[in-house]
Amino acid sequence: MNDPVRLSLAEVHALAWQVLRVHGVSEAHARAIADTITAAERDACKAHGLVRLPGYVRSVRSGKVTPDAVPEVHELAPAIVHVDGKNGFAPLALQIGRAPLAEKARQYGIAALAVTRIYHFAALWPEVEALAGEGLVAFAFTAARSYVAPAGGSKPLYGTNPMAFAWPRAGHPPLVFDQASSASARGEIQLHLRDGKPIPAGWALDVAGHPTTDPAAALAGAQLPFGGYKGAAIALMIELLAGALIGEVFSFEASVRDNHDGGPPGGGEFMIAIDPVRCVWHGNRQQQLAHAEQLFANILAQEGTRLPSDRRYAARQRTSREGITIPRALYEALQHAGERREPHGSNR
Amino acid sequence: MNDPVRLSLAEVHALAWQVLRVHGVSEAHARAIADTITAAERDACKAHGLVRLPGYVRSVRSGKVTPDAVPEVHELAPAIVHVDGKNGFAPLALQIGRAPLAEKARQYGIAALAVTRIYHFAALWPEVEALAGEGLVAFAFTAARSYVAPAGGSKPLYGTNPMAFAWPRAGHPPLVFDQASSASARGEIQLHLRDGKPIPAGWALDVAGHPTTDPAAALAGAQLPFGGYKGAAIALMIELLAGALIGEVFSFEASVRDNHDGGPPGGGEFMIAIDPVRCVWHGNRQQQLAHAEQLFANILAQEGTRLPSDRRYAARQRTSREGITIPRALYEALQHAGERREPHGSNR
Repeated sequence: MNDPVRLSLAEVHALAWQVLRVHGVSEAHARAIADTITAAERDACKAHGLVRLPGYVRSVRSGKVTPDAVPEVHELAPAIVHVDGKNGFAPLALQIGRAPLAEKARQYGIAALAVTRIYHFAALWPEVEALAGEGLVAFAFTAARSYVAPAGGSKPLYGTNPMAFAWPRAGHPPLVFDQASSASARGEIQLHLRDGKPIPAGWALDVAGHPTTDPAAALAGAQLPFGGYKGAAIALMIELLAGALIGEVFSFEASVRDNHDGGPPGGGEFMIAIDPVRCVWHGNRQQQLAHAEQLFANILAQEGTRLPSDRRYAARQRTSREGITIPRALYEALQHAGERREPHGSNR
Repeated sequence: MNDPVRLSLAEVHALAWQVLRVHGVSEAHARAIADTITAAERDACKAHGLVRLPGYVRSVRSGKVTPDAVPEVHELAPAIVHVDGKNGFAPLALQIGRAPLAEKARQYGIAALAVTRIYHFAALWPEVEALAGEGLVAFAFTAARSYVAPAGGSKPLYGTNPMAFAWPRAGHPPLVFDQASSASARGEIQLHLRDGKPIPAGWALDVAGHPTTDPAAALAGAQLPFGGYKGAAIALMIELLAGALIGEVFSFEASVRDNHDGGPPGGGEFMIAIDPVRCVWHGNRQQQLAHAEQLFANILAQEGTRLPSDRRYAARQRTSREGITIPRALYEALQHAGERREPHGSNR
């Protein structure tokens, strides 16, 4: 009975919701997290799917995250929105910040969102895709725990610091990329360790600061930024944007503060949204988007290319028909977690 | 008599100014370009220094660039400034856009500048450094001619598309990076060709789409983005920001339109400025900048590291005392160019 379990997307959502609710996560947070997890499963981004659910639960059980935090929205400047996550999970705080961010971008041409005191355990693309779905250009930046060495260095300092970008398209889901500034995701190194395989050169240094292809040595040492000093510069920029700029912690501070319960680290996220039609003299949105399509056509005219988000959208089409599969062991563990009544918080 | 010629920075500025003026470049443009060229020589960024002067002159002589264009400033939205370069060189348009961009960033928290119809032939760091010198966080993006293959592809499509970022520091010049999204500058490949040296693997493909270390084959083929598909995503983002977003050309369009006179390609530049103190609830600029210094200290505590702009600032200290040197042949050619009275435009 080791065959994987097939679930519809509605079942994924219901399962995530149930597990979170049973562990005292408020309705609003449970819904927002279930949305995020379902989006990841739908787009075949399994690393941010149901497999993350136990981590969310652990962070509630350890007392690190407030499971019923009510995020607060402030206006810091005419074009800057602040959402104080109040020590809660990120998805709800981000959902709450989206409408005021979009409204300000339309009103002023460009706007930013500073989200603080959140626990982020997912990808950034859902946030920027949603904004681009409303016709805006969007950026998102977040830091994490210290894993990556600075340029020339050999000790962990930066997080794997992802940056996401989205561009709206007419009659097509947005063009989106969401990439770590490390050479590889940390999870990829963990998968190599599990499978007993060496990692590619260029991913990591061992504790002595020497290049290594041993996944265990890599996890004990430091990950490397992608593309050498240029990727390191991007990682540094993201530390500043998601840290000092918005009054939040750097990755190395998040690492020190974390209780290592297996859940997400605390920190902040910074987003920018731009209304393209406000960036052109007598702007014409259709014309601007049509112009971008010419660039995309030129990319796709070359053999071997694809657009950054194409693979996710292909998966999305497939899973909306066929559903998704997860390992039976994970399914059974989640079922079990969803049945258990915890002594604390079960009625929240 | 092949020893290099030593010039003070004032002499660099005067020489550039003189050559430009003699070729009909207006006073305002000549001053702005001479500022840019002098800043490059001062910071030992020789590739954007006096060596660029003949290219500026050629673009005037070919009729491509309007040497006395008067840039126009418009407000496109409360937080979006537009400078129409009116077919002139970039430095003046950028200087003119700086004050309204900074003012809007302070007023709204974040603001953007769209500069169109310019010919850009320099680095981006002077623009972002100037804004960070006023206490703002700044980004700049520009595209260029088609040189770089998209991810998975093998034909030139993107420009070498630089992105610059600056962070203000208390009592220290700003932290700045300015990096091409190609694996190498095009000029570096040209230097390898001149010196008869192979280029490093990973820089380029030949016309058949195969990896090459032959600089001539690289120049005929396609440059590669830095860091594989992630650098390519950055290049794509920059095409969109400096192209379709602001109603300007993509690199492949600039290439087609260019007259290949050896001067700069036409196009646009996009900038963002953020006032950090508006990004924090009860923001305290000193506290935010002091926090960032802790990150910088942690970087520099690791052996082998330096901050992105340290090398330029060290050169700046040196050249303000010692001046700079240029090859005698270049000096003599520029002297000659500065003496000649062209039949057209000499009195402008």
